[in-house]
Amino acid sequence: MREAAPSLQMFTLQGIPDVRAGDDVGRFLHDAMVRSNEQWRTGDVVVVAQKIVSKAENRFRRIRDITPSDRAGEYANQTGKDPRKVQAILDESTEVIRVAAAPPDGVIITRHRSGWVCANAAIDESNVGEDGTLLLLPVDPDASAHRIAQTIGQHAGVRPGVIISDTFGRPWRRGLVNIAIGLAQVPPVHDWIGRGDAYGRPLRVSQPAFADEIAAAAGLLMGKDSFTPAVVVRGLSWQADPAASARQFVRPFDEDLFK
Amino acid sequence: MREAAPSLQMFTLQGIPDVRAGDDVGRFLHDAMVRSNEQWRTGDVVVVAQKIVSKAENRFRRIRDITPSDRAGEYANQTGKDPRKVQAILDESTEVIRVAAAPPDGVIITRHRSGWVCANAAIDESNVGEDGTLLLLPVDPDASAHRIAQTIGQHAGVRPGVIISDTFGRPWRRGLVNIAIGLAQVPPVHDWIGRGDAYGRPLRVSQPAFADEIAAAAGLLMGKDSFTPAVVVRGLSWQADPAASARQFVRPFDEDLFK
Repeated sequence: MREAAPSLQMFTLQGIPDVRAGDDVGRFLHDAMVRSNEQWRTGDVVVVAQKIVSKAENRFRRIRDITPSDRAGEYANQTGKDPRKVQAILDESTEVIRVAAAPPDGVIITRHRSGWVCANAAIDESNVGEDGTLLLLPVDPDASAHRIAQTIGQHAGVRPGVIISDTFGRPWRRGLVNIAIGLAQVPPVHDWIGRGDAYGRPLRVSQPAFADEIAAAAGLLMGKDSFTPAVVVRGLSWQADPAASARQFVRPFDEDLFK
Repeated sequence: MREAAPSLQMFTLQGIPDVRAGDDVGRFLHDAMVRSNEQWRTGDVVVVAQKIVSKAENRFRRIRDITPSDRAGEYANQTGKDPRKVQAILDESTEVIRVAAAPPDGVIITRHRSGWVCANAAIDESNVGEDGTLLLLPVDPDASAHRIAQTIGQHAGVRPGVIISDTFGRPWRRGLVNIAIGLAQVPPVHDWIGRGDAYGRPLRVSQPAFADEIAAAAGLLMGKDSFTPAVVVRGLSWQADPAASARQFVRPFDEDLFK
């Protein structure tokens, strides 16, 4: 159960170098904390942009190495996308939800193999440092988050909560928000069922998306065009949950009242 | 254009009294700021829970005063909801998207007359202090936000950005997040089109939902069962936009790739 905390602080970890395949992201985050004359505190949550985690895990895919299937060719015709990009999207997805020609180069909404419904399988083409290279999501973002938490814990003696975040679009609402795609320790959802409201009556089902709120907050400090891939949120009141997983956010289609 | 800020602070405004119809919310927020020995600073954004704004604007509706239509009766049968509640939902909506029997008493997804797609027309039955009373959204949440900004500006000499927020569910994703339903001065979306990425190439369309990120961040400090209906976010880097409106978040159905 979360108690309302009176205040929160958020700050960016400065001076994280350009991440390359094989780099140790947890070590980079810890070094950045030390360089800023700060230290990890109990209850800190660090939000890490998916992009640097994917780079460290060598999740690059060169477009010239991809051979598109017939199905990818069809979607490419519908959207105007490069058929090899479409193939990469299909390879990352379990289900195609919608295919649309939309600027600048079409959108394919799929269910990602992790369960998220998102545009273009969350494949990134910006900031990857080489034209013609795609950057896929980490294979298992929860595991990535756990490794980062463990590394920081080894160096700092305090194990922070870790959220791997990415920016997703929303149905029915313009603009992108940062959401949690991988979690270590941080409970995805706080469950308020059974607590009383301010008048003492039992509350109806109310489940604040705690980890997504933290990710969205961190988005305020993550400039897309600058190297600010990690934000520390301090002052949150929460209990570590070793079984926490961002997959708990996935709402099965048969439960989805909005679809 | 937003520049990435190095750090942010958020704090709750303490000691706001139980709001009643006719109360001046802006004055309450300012008094709470003064009582905590703080002052408004240029660039502050205050996030205010919809509930206290609706109460101040007397947006109560007594369930025993409602006569349900035949259509409301049909939806009531389908969902198990009270037909008078259903009528209140229909009165607040322009379009019914989905009707479902779901615990505890069914859900009707509609397009609210403000444009939002949400559950049960965002009508609140908790924390209203009297059984059998519904609490509707403010008639014009942007106007509510402007009045609050103006009142604080008169007393403080500094006019903060104001966000009226509510908690909404998300398609395809469990858990509720705070979003912006009314805005004064705060731009809803930051537009990064045309900025270069870290390698100097033009960025593709990327529109962070700035006001929604702020609302979500504030949600971390708004305890549903406690009186913490207002959170100040300090340290954001933004330009006031007099024409800002939360309605700019509404994505027309024909643009919606996720539907």
